Amino acid sequence: MLDPSQDMPGQCALVTGGTGFIGSHLVDHLQTAGWTVHMLARTNAEHIFPSSAGVQLHPYRGGTADVTDAMERSRPDVVFHLASLFLAQHTPRQIVPLIESNITLGTQLLEAMSAVGVTSLVNAGTSWQHFHCEGYRPVNLYAATKQAFEDILAYYADAGDIRAVTLSLFDSYGPGDTRKKLLRTLRDSLKTDKELHMSPGDQVIDLVHVDDICEAFLHAARLLRDPKHPPLASYAISGGQRMTLRQIVATLEQAAGRTVRVNWGARAYRPREVMHLWDGPPMPGWQPRITLAEGLKALLWERSL
Amino acid sequence: MLDPSQDMPGQCALVTGGTGFIGSHLVDHLQTAGWTVHMLARTNAEHIFPSSAGVQLHPYRGGTADVTDAMERSRPDVVFHLASLFLAQHTPRQIVPLIESNITLGTQLLEAMSAVGVTSLVNAGTSWQHFHCEGYRPVNLYAATKQAFEDILAYYADAGDIRAVTLSLFDSYGPGDTRKKLLRTLRDSLKTDKELHMSPGDQVIDLVHVDDICEAFLHAARLLRDPKHPPLASYAISGGQRMTLRQIVATLEQAAGRTVRVNWGARAYRPREVMHLWDGPPMPGWQPRITLAEGLKALLWERSL
Repeated sequence: MLDPSQDMPGQCALVTGGTGFIGSHLVDHLQTAGWTVHMLARTNAEHIFPSSAGVQLHPYRGGTADVTDAMERSRPDVVFHLASLFLAQHTPRQIVPLIESNITLGTQLLEAMSAVGVTSLVNAGTSWQHFHCEGYRPVNLYAATKQAFEDILAYYADAGDIRAVTLSLFDSYGPGDTRKKLLRTLRDSLKTDKELHMSPGDQVIDLVHVDDICEAFLHAARLLRDPKHPPLASYAISGGQRMTLRQIVATLEQAAGRTVRVNWGARAYRPREVMHLWDGPPMPGWQPRITLAEGLKALLWERSL
Repeated sequence: MLDPSQDMPGQCALVTGGTGFIGSHLVDHLQTAGWTVHMLARTNAEHIFPSSAGVQLHPYRGGTADVTDAMERSRPDVVFHLASLFLAQHTPRQIVPLIESNITLGTQLLEAMSAVGVTSLVNAGTSWQHFHCEGYRPVNLYAATKQAFEDILAYYADAGDIRAVTLSLFDSYGPGDTRKKLLRTLRDSLKTDKELHMSPGDQVIDLVHVDDICEAFLHAARLLRDPKHPPLASYAISGGQRMTLRQIVATLEQAAGRTVRVNWGARAYRPREVMHLWDGPPMPGWQPRITLAEGLKALLWERSL
């Protein structure tokens, strides 16, 4: 999938969030493309990421010095910042971890980059910063903290030498996904024939295959090497096939050759449910390659393993 | 100075940053206007704020539960959020305290307000969020963290019932100011005749008397009672007499009847020195009453006590 002439063998990456769904795929993608990969990870990460062969782990205990140490030891060409705490809805107890994960760690990265002289950052944002398709209107506190980090990023780009691309992500899917999300629920229901209680199902969803997302991260790193690219940019990483939840279920049923038992409308929409999606600027030179039909078929095949 | 017919005797305030220069004046102003005042303060605050007579102190140790407790016990009509960590320039070690003071505490306040059903917030922002007079362009990381908090505030206003006014502050001065800032340096030099090494002195400064600032905070609270006022607003609290540093020294010399020995240009401007000031929207119904000549005279008189 990667065109070696375009990619950057011999480059070095420092990845945060490398133990997550997208992050672990990105680490593989980078290694396949010939990158040396370092990972900043909470100290318990070795236990939950056994496939860290060839990846240099740097421990993070919450302090800025940990991040500076990792930056000095890895001296990466590009930092890929994917670590975040995602919460659709939060509780009061989650305020501090939400800010620490989504604002503090990123600021520490920028500070360490500035100290060590690392300038390129690819940052994971969320389309949920744009509720009702607006410039900035956060769906939830998670999205507000992501926007807050972008405010801080703007300072480091303006006052220092940081160059950054933020990728606004929609929904992701692909192999090895253990998150309790829509597609997993649907697959489980195909297997067990258990009836699913769902909302009316007219919310629009933009599912993007994780391989396409990883390629978007690599492409953003390429753009940052181009001196003509603006120092600070934000792109929407859309799968290109937006469908309502009902249409996605129909597409999956077609791929599976059987129906899912859904009781539509048995549940209400979530407060501030995102019904329509933001049309952000696309990233020049990147487009998704995996259709939803292909991606879902592969997912069903994975299920039968 | 306060018009009782306009003010709200019997109202209750919860103040953060009440031990600081503006905050301690605000507590006095509120009490004079007949408010009951509660203060959320770090647990060592009783030592540094002996004049807490009549003020109910609620301890803050960093946790969200402390803030919720304070909110439940005080059930204020208005929260005045002035606590912040101000740093013109930061070091890596200050990243975590900067975020904790300027983002986390405010978010905890909003969360606690939402939980308890308190809706009105008057928030202290900084004109430094608008370097080169731009919509958002932070002078320093301090200003970026203040903007980050406003993004979080926008979420609570949009998704919940929070109504908030942010006052973008310029430079403040007035009696009892122990901060090592410009006017104190100038006053000390008048006393000792010591030569001061300064920048070329052409940066524009907007000095606002602390009594005018306090009145702005009270006025913002009045505006929040008006259901026609927008739920989220931001106003620039200007002293109305912008001068260059050189002009301020001349004004002070006139008030003192003698000259200050200044070696202009002996020091370079600070990196990202703010030369021109932001023209933000003024707050309807409020204007400064104390001229710089009056305010500086009073300050010189205070010195001779």
